[in-house]
Amino acid sequence: MNFVTLAREDNMLKLLDQTVLPQQLTYKLLDNYQDVITAIKRLEVRGAPAIGIAAAYGLALAAEHQGRHDDLERVASEIRAARPTAVNLAWAVDRVIARLKNEQPSGQRAVADLLWSEAEAIHEEDRQMCDRIGEHGATLIHDGDSVLTHCNAGALATGGIGTALAVIYVASRQGKKIKVYADETRPLLQGARLTSWELQQEGIDVSLLCDNSAGFLMAQGKVKHVVVGADRIAMNGDTANKIGTYTVALLAKEHGIPFYVAAPFSTFDTVVKTGKEIEIEQRAAEEITEGFGRRTAPEGIATYSPAFDVTPNRLITAFITDTGIKPGGRKD
Amino acid sequence: MNFVTLAREDNMLKLLDQTVLPQQLTYKLLDNYQDVITAIKRLEVRGAPAIGIAAAYGLALAAEHQGRHDDLERVASEIRAARPTAVNLAWAVDRVIARLKNEQPSGQRAVADLLWSEAEAIHEEDRQMCDRIGEHGATLIHDGDSVLTHCNAGALATGGIGTALAVIYVASRQGKKIKVYADETRPLLQGARLTSWELQQEGIDVSLLCDNSAGFLMAQGKVKHVVVGADRIAMNGDTANKIGTYTVALLAKEHGIPFYVAAPFSTFDTVVKTGKEIEIEQRAAEEITEGFGRRTAPEGIATYSPAFDVTPNRLITAFITDTGIKPGGRKD
Repeated sequence: MNFVTLAREDNMLKLLDQTVLPQQLTYKLLDNYQDVITAIKRLEVRGAPAIGIAAAYGLALAAEHQGRHDDLERVASEIRAARPTAVNLAWAVDRVIARLKNEQPSGQRAVADLLWSEAEAIHEEDRQMCDRIGEHGATLIHDGDSVLTHCNAGALATGGIGTALAVIYVASRQGKKIKVYADETRPLLQGARLTSWELQQEGIDVSLLCDNSAGFLMAQGKVKHVVVGADRIAMNGDTANKIGTYTVALLAKEHGIPFYVAAPFSTFDTVVKTGKEIEIEQRAAEEITEGFGRRTAPEGIATYSPAFDVTPNRLITAFITDTGIKPGGRKD
Repeated sequence: MNFVTLAREDNMLKLLDQTVLPQQLTYKLLDNYQDVITAIKRLEVRGAPAIGIAAAYGLALAAEHQGRHDDLERVASEIRAARPTAVNLAWAVDRVIARLKNEQPSGQRAVADLLWSEAEAIHEEDRQMCDRIGEHGATLIHDGDSVLTHCNAGALATGGIGTALAVIYVASRQGKKIKVYADETRPLLQGARLTSWELQQEGIDVSLLCDNSAGFLMAQGKVKHVVVGADRIAMNGDTANKIGTYTVALLAKEHGIPFYVAAPFSTFDTVVKTGKEIEIEQRAAEEITEGFGRRTAPEGIATYSPAFDVTPNRLITAFITDTGIKPGGRKD
């Protein structure tokens, strides 16, 4: 990859601002956790694994630059509340706080050092999990196959080469020729702005389509596999992911196309039993009514804008995880 | 309605430019058929019934202002080729030419008068068909119901009060309180720009959603009926309509929600046997890559952009036509 999604740099958090891609490749250097929260809320950094990593770095910034080394549980609560649906955010924050409690370092420097080291460990583990997801997933993909994906579950969404897109990257590096169809993914167009951009950077054949076109594309026999990421997987396999994923899963079933969810173990919730219990974030009306430079809906119009939906396990062929491929609930 | 979609005015064609709605209410006065073709191609006028009416007026303009009264078959061929999928366009042109051949008027004035009269007859018949579609369809809708619609099959798409939206207008005028969910309908956002605007003008409760959200909305039990329009209905009931309609139909079936296609008889093709034979127009890449006033996809990206898809008759509960409600192929 010729870009960095996020990284520690000079004891600050270097972050690629994904809101201005693909026109601009702009990095921000953050030195405080509030800016990390803002970046997560504004989707400057997004993707369940990446926001978990950013959250961990945010705690380090609070200790390093803000004198909050004795008050990190309150900082943790604020960060945890940035976005409700992705489980990785709470998972990463909880993991850092647990290590802190366990080791009880003393003094600002020791606390900050421990937080940096835990954040970097989370980041490095995610990088390795991405590679393993890619390796497991690539066994499912053959030379000449076409893959449809929704939203962005790529290098821009993780600390490594992605989850869903890791499957494609590894298959491609194995010499398999893959054709990717990228749903543009309204409202924020992560497919258009991010997925098609990062695949293009890697020289992978990608075609962009409106979310509306996925059904007709499948009806014409042009899709061999669907691979998507996940923001939270309930204990029964129900999967929260970017709004529209449920529709793609239903279309895939109708057309007999395997539907795979690629995710690291940190995305599997150990508390939430079914999809019904997953809190779904609602986004601001403006993302629909004036998303990209001009207003495209009447003033005063009401909107319905969930950021995620829940795909029931019965529509999922398999989960591609860092520890292997686990069957989902779909039985055809 | 406090707007006019299209009308004869001073022997010209007055046309509401739908490409700049909802920000601007701009009318154009056209005096030649080439501008009518351009307006159809650019979707300044769109909707299967409305482009049929516009095409008929275009023939009148060719005779009235362009000295083409002896050469109308060639004009007709050009107009017929403006957009391939909506059958009403060819139907209207063929009807005008047939009347011309039948009556054989002599001289420019007589030809032009006949063409105006036939175009206005088509327009007036469409207006009446819209009313009847609305009356038949309103019998299916009850006080307090919610209706999801896709694209715009309203007053802006016809010579009257619409097809799918006629059902809502008539139900509303009968005193039924209706909640409408309007899919925004990428790429050209007819739901956001047109449907939500015209429903808002009429004081009807409407919420706008991304096409991606329709599945989750249905899963939450918020949709009672789906009503859409049609661009061409094959003899077996397969229906070409705005891209994404097929997906909505599949979602409706999955959730046990009735799926209705509202269309006048001119949308029923008498030649094409099944949906497979319907020619599907492909649209320009820019409608996806820079549709909102700025570029939102990388330079050089490939796209897949069909303007329509085909909903198989087996997913259609019923057709709401001007002559009554006819059962579709869906049997639940």
